[in-house]
Amino acid sequence: MIEDKNPQRTPIEQLGEFGLIDHLTRNFEIGQASTVKAIGDDAAVIHHEKQTVITTDMLVEGVHFDLSYVPLKHLGYKAVMVNLSDVYAMNAVASQVTVSIAVSSRFPVEALDELYDGIQLACKNYQVDLIGGDTTSSNSGLIISITAIGEQKEKEIVYRNGASDGDLLVVSGDIGAAYLGLQILEREKQVFKANPNNQPDIEAYSYLIERQLKPEARKDIPKLLEDLEVKPTSMIDLSDGLSSEIIHLCKNSKVGMKVYEDKIPLDPTVISACEEFNLDSTTVALSGGEDYELLFTVKQEDFPKIKANPSLSIIGHVVPEGEGIHLITRGGEQIAVKAMGWNSFESE
Amino acid sequence: MIEDKNPQRTPIEQLGEFGLIDHLTRNFEIGQASTVKAIGDDAAVIHHEKQTVITTDMLVEGVHFDLSYVPLKHLGYKAVMVNLSDVYAMNAVASQVTVSIAVSSRFPVEALDELYDGIQLACKNYQVDLIGGDTTSSNSGLIISITAIGEQKEKEIVYRNGASDGDLLVVSGDIGAAYLGLQILEREKQVFKANPNNQPDIEAYSYLIERQLKPEARKDIPKLLEDLEVKPTSMIDLSDGLSSEIIHLCKNSKVGMKVYEDKIPLDPTVISACEEFNLDSTTVALSGGEDYELLFTVKQEDFPKIKANPSLSIIGHVVPEGEGIHLITRGGEQIAVKAMGWNSFESE
Repeated sequence: MIEDKNPQRTPIEQLGEFGLIDHLTRNFEIGQASTVKAIGDDAAVIHHEKQTVITTDMLVEGVHFDLSYVPLKHLGYKAVMVNLSDVYAMNAVASQVTVSIAVSSRFPVEALDELYDGIQLACKNYQVDLIGGDTTSSNSGLIISITAIGEQKEKEIVYRNGASDGDLLVVSGDIGAAYLGLQILEREKQVFKANPNNQPDIEAYSYLIERQLKPEARKDIPKLLEDLEVKPTSMIDLSDGLSSEIIHLCKNSKVGMKVYEDKIPLDPTVISACEEFNLDSTTVALSGGEDYELLFTVKQEDFPKIKANPSLSIIGHVVPEGEGIHLITRGGEQIAVKAMGWNSFESE
Repeated sequence: MIEDKNPQRTPIEQLGEFGLIDHLTRNFEIGQASTVKAIGDDAAVIHHEKQTVITTDMLVEGVHFDLSYVPLKHLGYKAVMVNLSDVYAMNAVASQVTVSIAVSSRFPVEALDELYDGIQLACKNYQVDLIGGDTTSSNSGLIISITAIGEQKEKEIVYRNGASDGDLLVVSGDIGAAYLGLQILEREKQVFKANPNNQPDIEAYSYLIERQLKPEARKDIPKLLEDLEVKPTSMIDLSDGLSSEIIHLCKNSKVGMKVYEDKIPLDPTVISACEEFNLDSTTVALSGGEDYELLFTVKQEDFPKIKANPSLSIIGHVVPEGEGIHLITRGGEQIAVKAMGWNSFESE
């Protein structure tokens, strides 16, 4: 790890709260027609012709991220992704975000610049406007609270509660990689602690690490579904782990589910890393979390429209509620699916 | 101070994150026609016919509040008020809030119940729906991040930038009390530390303490102005102190201001407490902050409509930008107004 021996460290107090907001947001551009007024008044003003979707997430240092291996720019990018992912899970188009941070004085302005570089890149890549936020001091560490706003026609919004018997269960992309990326970063942290001169060899894991550090929300999926003329009957994003999200869909829709182990899409590097870490790849896929893929159900009649799509995998189907939620293993066994996702309040 | 010797303490881990959200929000009712979907999906959905205003604020334990004298129920109430005040400062009607908290395990569920009781009371009194949020653990203390959402017709929204030469400067209610309330609470904390058996005698200060602990956002003012057929030319809420907010209005509107010391509305208890604390009441009014009154400018021709209103005080008038921002003292002296408001990044 190359260290800058003379990094510039401007104390936040030098700018003050308003100076800091001005400084951090000076390069952000407004591109959305629906943004009437962004930063600079008591509140932002937007004008949506359709319905407005709003979601919010808080990321806490030491709970959701570890700055010893998460670069601040990536953190800013990811914090926006986590929120946009929820907007896309409503089948909506993201349009605006607000970003609030509480930060201790151990962070110089230059560190916050990096964080906001990542936020700005996310806003640019996903075409959302930064329209507001709050900046305050904290007694310990960094807390990021983001609210994402999107827009969609009433009849196109997809909730968690529309799945019904016979629907197909579909997931975008592949899963489990973000969790393994975290395992690798944690391992390298321990190696570095033991021997700071050790050069980490993480090239083989670059996909896994990228999925952990710089996930991409699936903005393309609502667009793809629109092009395919498929409206999901229910949808959710994969933040806490596949099993936990399947249970959410089932509970909200009052249905059961059969999920086929051999259909769960895994990247080859996930399989090899699981071997290396002596982990079961299905368990990783079910419980890992942070994949930010979309999980949704579609009517059986839509099968021909999605079956050949490389971005989508059909991994199961809906059954009546009384039949429960089960994983069908490669050996044909039925195992009840339990929530095993991540919970920030769980003691380790 | 009466202590419950056997308070119930349910650890948060016992409920888990989703259980906790369900528990804390179980008694909240949805009353706004514009709320399509509240808590329970990837995002909330709202449908505003008019423009949407959005504002967000973060409150950090040890920075914005001290739990040794702020009851959690009051804190929840105030956290909502702080945000609604910004919505009213846009001349809009508040309709929804999202509430995110990060909380350390030293807080039992019962403490969060109190916090949410205050949030619920605020939602009920101000007719806003709780539509979302996030609940996570923190390594230290309590952080509350609230986003408030409101609605208003495009032509009724009031920004900070519309003041022009000759406009009258108006403030609602009276100011300085919240700051003095804080001084009294801080003093009682020191007294209690020195002698825990001392019974505080704070009845004489009840107005000041209530203004600090349980402020009310001025929902009534946009309504009053509508009834009076007055549209402010610019408006801001008083969170950081009168001088700082006057400067914001002037900077945004590119104007100067003359403010008259003898016109600043002070409650009699503010004057007596200032004498007791050996503070200058004008300085307290200018720099105190947390009054959550509305400060706005109106056209001179609206003077007859507002002059006799007991909720409104005309405290100055707009002058050209080049003339600067001045306080005209009781003695007729002109003093340049400088920002002296509260800044969370300032070292004490």
